[in-house]
Amino acid sequence: MSGNTFGTLFCVTNFGESHGPAIGCVIDGCPPGMLLSESDIQADLDRRRPGTSRHVTQRNEPDAVEILSGVYEGRTTGTPIGLLIRNQDQRSKDYGDILQTFRPGHADYAYWHKYGLRDPRGGGRSSARLTAPTVAAGAVARKWLAEKYGTQLRACMTQLGELEIPFEAWEHVPNNPFFAPVQDVARFEDYMDALRKAGDSCGARIRVQATGVPVGLGEPLYDKLDADIAYAMMGLNAVKGVEIGAGFASVAQRGTTHGDSLTPGGFRNNNAGGVLGGISTGQDIEVSIAIKPTSSIISPRESIDIHGQSAEVITKGRHDPCVGIRAAPIAEALLALVLMDHALRHRAQCGDVVQSVPPIKASL
Amino acid sequence: MSGNTFGTLFCVTNFGESHGPAIGCVIDGCPPGMLLSESDIQADLDRRRPGTSRHVTQRNEPDAVEILSGVYEGRTTGTPIGLLIRNQDQRSKDYGDILQTFRPGHADYAYWHKYGLRDPRGGGRSSARLTAPTVAAGAVARKWLAEKYGTQLRACMTQLGELEIPFEAWEHVPNNPFFAPVQDVARFEDYMDALRKAGDSCGARIRVQATGVPVGLGEPLYDKLDADIAYAMMGLNAVKGVEIGAGFASVAQRGTTHGDSLTPGGFRNNNAGGVLGGISTGQDIEVSIAIKPTSSIISPRESIDIHGQSAEVITKGRHDPCVGIRAAPIAEALLALVLMDHALRHRAQCGDVVQSVPPIKASL
Amino acid sequence: MSGNTFGTLFCVTNFGESHGPAIGCVIDGCPPGMLLSESDIQADLDRRRPGTSRHVTQRNEPDAVEILSGVYEGRTTGTPIGLLIRNQDQRSKDYGDILQTFRPGHADYAYWHKYGLRDPRGGGRSSARLTAPTVAAGAVARKWLAEKYGTQLRACMTQLGELEIPFEAWEHVPNNPFFAPVQDVARFEDYMDALRKAGDSCGARIRVQATGVPVGLGEPLYDKLDADIAYAMMGLNAVKGVEIGAGFASVAQRGTTHGDSLTPGGFRNNNAGGVLGGISTGQDIEVSIAIKPTSSIISPRESIDIHGQSAEVITKGRHDPCVGIRAAPIAEALLALVLMDHALRHRAQCGDVVQSVPPIKASL
Amino acid sequence: MSGNTFGTLFCVTNFGESHGPAIGCVIDGCPPGMLLSESDIQADLDRRRPGTSRHVTQRNEPDAVEILSGVYEGRTTGTPIGLLIRNQDQRSKDYGDILQTFRPGHADYAYWHKYGLRDPRGGGRSSARLTAPTVAAGAVARKWLAEKYGTQLRACMTQLGELEIPFEAWEHVPNNPFFAPVQDVARFEDYMDALRKAGDSCGARIRVQATGVPVGLGEPLYDKLDADIAYAMMGLNAVKGVEIGAGFASVAQRGTTHGDSLTPGGFRNNNAGGVLGGISTGQDIEVSIAIKPTSSIISPRESIDIHGQSAEVITKGRHDPCVGIRAAPIAEALLALVLMDHALRHRAQCGDVVQSVPPIKASL
Repeated sequence: MSGNTFGTLFCVTNFGESHGPAIGCVIDGCPPGMLLSESDIQADLDRRRPGTSRHVTQRNEPDAVEILSGVYEGRTTGTPIGLLIRNQDQRSKDYGDILQTFRPGHADYAYWHKYGLRDPRGGGRSSARLTAPTVAAGAVARKWLAEKYGTQLRACMTQLGELEIPFEAWEHVPNNPFFAPVQDVARFEDYMDALRKAGDSCGARIRVQATGVPVGLGEPLYDKLDADIAYAMMGLNAVKGVEIGAGFASVAQRGTTHGDSLTPGGFRNNNAGGVLGGISTGQDIEVSIAIKPTSSIISPRESIDIHGQSAEVITKGRHDPCVGIRAAPIAEALLALVLMDHALRHRAQCGDVVQSVPPIKASL
Repeated sequence: MSGNTFGTLFCVTNFGESHGPAIGCVIDGCPPGMLLSESDIQADLDRRRPGTSRHVTQRNEPDAVEILSGVYEGRTTGTPIGLLIRNQDQRSKDYGDILQTFRPGHADYAYWHKYGLRDPRGGGRSSARLTAPTVAAGAVARKWLAEKYGTQLRACMTQLGELEIPFEAWEHVPNNPFFAPVQDVARFEDYMDALRKAGDSCGARIRVQATGVPVGLGEPLYDKLDADIAYAMMGLNAVKGVEIGAGFASVAQRGTTHGDSLTPGGFRNNNAGGVLGGISTGQDIEVSIAIKPTSSIISPRESIDIHGQSAEVITKGRHDPCVGIRAAPIAEALLALVLMDHALRHRAQCGDVVQSVPPIKASL
Repeated sequence: MSGNTFGTLFCVTNFGESHGPAIGCVIDGCPPGMLLSESDIQADLDRRRPGTSRHVTQRNEPDAVEILSGVYEGRTTGTPIGLLIRNQDQRSKDYGDILQTFRPGHADYAYWHKYGLRDPRGGGRSSARLTAPTVAAGAVARKWLAEKYGTQLRACMTQLGELEIPFEAWEHVPNNPFFAPVQDVARFEDYMDALRKAGDSCGARIRVQATGVPVGLGEPLYDKLDADIAYAMMGLNAVKGVEIGAGFASVAQRGTTHGDSLTPGGFRNNNAGGVLGGISTGQDIEVSIAIKPTSSIISPRESIDIHGQSAEVITKGRHDPCVGIRAAPIAEALLALVLMDHALRHRAQCGDVVQSVPPIKASL
Repeated sequence: MSGNTFGTLFCVTNFGESHGPAIGCVIDGCPPGMLLSESDIQADLDRRRPGTSRHVTQRNEPDAVEILSGVYEGRTTGTPIGLLIRNQDQRSKDYGDILQTFRPGHADYAYWHKYGLRDPRGGGRSSARLTAPTVAAGAVARKWLAEKYGTQLRACMTQLGELEIPFEAWEHVPNNPFFAPVQDVARFEDYMDALRKAGDSCGARIRVQATGVPVGLGEPLYDKLDADIAYAMMGLNAVKGVEIGAGFASVAQRGTTHGDSLTPGGFRNNNAGGVLGGISTGQDIEVSIAIKPTSSIISPRESIDIHGQSAEVITKGRHDPCVGIRAAPIAEALLALVLMDHALRHRAQCGDVVQSVPPIKASL
């Protein structure tokens, strides 16, 4: 339990640094007998990959994954699945000048004081690059969930900096570099171009959804499904807020409107976001997350050096001006990992439960 | 790890149902040698206790705690601390009519499908009553944190239904039944009276703060301090949203303004909410949570019965019209538990780290 | 994970001291829907109870268990089962003289240095009394295992001090105070009487067996079934050795004789003790444990006091001259807990595995 | 916690199969700031390596370890240490004929029923080859323990088949292929040569010792130090028995002789094996383990095939005729991992404990 393992039964142990030789993870607890190849994982990694548009970091990483273990003749064996991604496009010299100073808003200062030393190359362990193994593990989880329950996961951007993004349709999401659910993204392109020119960065808001989730996932009192979702999402780099269902809007709602009516044909609405009492209801899981602006920016900032003296910090290197742009596939992966883990936990305890009455539909 | 234990090293295992014989918890991992008596715990329990104003449930529970173990001659021994609270004012007959139906917005339906049966008396396990043992455990944690680091925890209400509550001063919080940081709470009294008359309920927003937090708490990659805070808070009954620091407002911020400047005299501001890269910075921990309106209301609601047929539900019994009113001490306790657990985890791994330069102050 | 919780999915958290107000445990993760009452648990507690013959401690404890939670209308609900046993026959004054000295062979010295203080009354936390909650939890596990798989657990004494006890039949075990599988126990009575007269104590060897264990329990690489059995048994007070199957005798065996032949009609023998590669084979689980002589004896012993000075120690109070005598039901309970936990873990990961060929029988 | 992670705070997650592309592990929780290079680890791996004498398997594996992460400029950073060992000398075709049958005494049958499929190449996951990552992780632990406490670990063979090996001196151990503490090993050479010629295998008994262990390690009630040692050792491939201190001999001892006297100058003897009440005493930790004869032997055996029909099994391939021969460095590594984990756990909870009186010496 030293902080780099995600999950209780479907356990993902993550290792690596941004500019070390390799990153990767070990998945322990995957059910045996599932067809799995590197291409199943690569597809999700490619969606997260840097360098795919001018709006993200220009670091060029193929992020090619190698399965080291746990698969025999194309099927999972139930033993740990080792996944390895070699780093290829490090330019560690870019980071020489942040060795001595701490970037405001960055993990530098906290790492330094916690561990007494830090790997400063590309943010070392605190780099968003470490989300790649999470995405790889999430690909395994979502494959199992899809085959077992028909569960589907998707995410889109709902706000870019101060620009709200109206929801038009899920089908637009894969067709633009912002994961935006709209057809025309010209104004977001312009916004990002201006931001980059100004040497600044911005935040984003991401919506994550799971459909086809079975009723009954979640372990109250503490390991509630929504508690574990909040843990997963808040643990994603740069996230500062998490909502389930109506989220903060529920504060101003009345009980008579907030509680989702149940009907024989299905739930009438979804303020719950798919979780009640910490247990999935069969409604869609709806999550929204707030991502702060990137702290590694080229504009000069007021800070201190490692001796405690005043210093001005300018961050060179290659960075995402909005880390939220690539967050959609990562958030999907995290939600998949939480659901997978709870699916296994649920059947461990409640595998014998039989209900005479089937659950109602997610919605009318 | 079956969902009812909180923490990795300072572990709180919670048991009980709203209308069973008793509720309680076992705290495992408390450092030895700390003075501890029942009165240390009772003070926090009394702040959470029902029946203390007309705006909360009228159930009358003394919530008297008994220490069953782990304390010898007034000091903790390092062995498990068993805490017991007998239930006294159950009126289970009030709940007879919800045996056959599911309350919209309530855990009824999810519990039923997960476990195949449920204890319906007062919500059984899903009752907010089960936050009492959490508060009791939190009292132990906050005593240790205060003695060891001078850490202090406090919480207040910042919104009641649609009414925003301006922050005047912390000193007002203990002087009104709403935990509101304002002197005059007349309009909140009126608001609640009207709501109760209407047979409805409302949500609330709570701010939680920890001061005097040492630098270095938190275990990236996954068990980040803010991730575990989000887990703790989202796991509190009725919570639908969690923010750290600037929270959702950070989406519209720029990197040049969001990142908190470091100066030799301290941090210039606190958008981070006290956590960067998942590790505490020494700034105040600032958390905000959204609490939904109570689902147990007297107004008739559309629902189904356990046979899947349409049914109208009216919830009798004694309920909080706004569960957020009593949430402040619970949120403090949860934050204390997270900090305590991470304090122990941190010294386990990094107990030998010595820094030549001391941390800067939380603020200028 | 602070040392007082047993199991990964069927979790038992134990609390209490020998002379505190109460001892007990919380069982988390029990499957819902199982009939359970206090009498199901009391039967096993009574088999472990002190004061039932002149060969065990004369402390008179009814060990009456109260179910505090987790059962509704006679069935487990899937929520934590709180179990409470009040201590009744403490005579703490007997222990006044060991406050300042350390008993050789006893936990006194180690506790003192670890925690900086200790509860000396009756051994405090290190007392064998704390096996009572383990037995209570084990009773729940064995009920589930019996109903689900037909698994049965039993234990008997196979050596008392230097006296080897030949195996006659299981049916004799409940008929004598030694849990010996023989009809005539006169020589063991005499042996114990002489020992007590001499103010000395002796060890014992216990055999534990589980029949009707399904194939497939155990999680290699590390959480092997036999590894977890060894952990459980070595954790029982006073145990100094654990064997599975042929145990230490396997050192001198050849591969041609040790490996149990498989035949279409069943396994030909059972050197494995029911576990191969860390996974149950369907053979009977066979375990043997060595229990050292009690360290609390009335004969004077050479030791030191808490100031590090030489001291002579004589232990008054009421003690078992052979703790092994009451160990049989405890060892059964521990084996039940391990099997239960692994049964849940197995179905979590492998719940979908279907084999066209059924397992062979435990034996021909 | 799916079975392939060892430890609570110093966590080792192991992956790989005997004939897959690679094996390795991730160490999470290592304290920061320790000098660490591949050569620190390689030394222990080389002691375990196959192919170093005619008495072990002739598979030729360099077992060259690569550090993938967690070390920066030669020091541990506190982040996960990824270790990779590529497999090089697989000859999977040797195993073709065991695809359809189960070796008596081998994990084949249990894996097959548990997972529904298995990787049969070289035993797949159940191969003793998977002890290499454990040894690598142990090397990191023992380096830290040596630097922090002066703890030293060593192991030797005390019995080979039916031949008992008298203890002459530790200094002989590195000078013969049996890890035997004797100068002249001619009769063991002859014994093994005869065994190999007979196509048979034999067991072994190994003694493991740790000196310089601080007082206070171990977490009663359940996670006792000796319980975790027993878990670790019984989890080593082919181990069927574990003893601490006097072990099974303690059954026939009296309390007056078993309990180790304390004197101001140190403990008078060590029947405890360094653990009392589950907590280290500062005495040497003494462990003894029984290793069964290898199940993969060339002599024909009675068994069944995967259809449940009778079959004769002959195991070709390259195997250790006595797996115990290479067990010494593995057992040392396991003991190091247990001690390291408990050292971190101890200082997490008891880091503030100060004793006015220092512990006594391990022995007079």
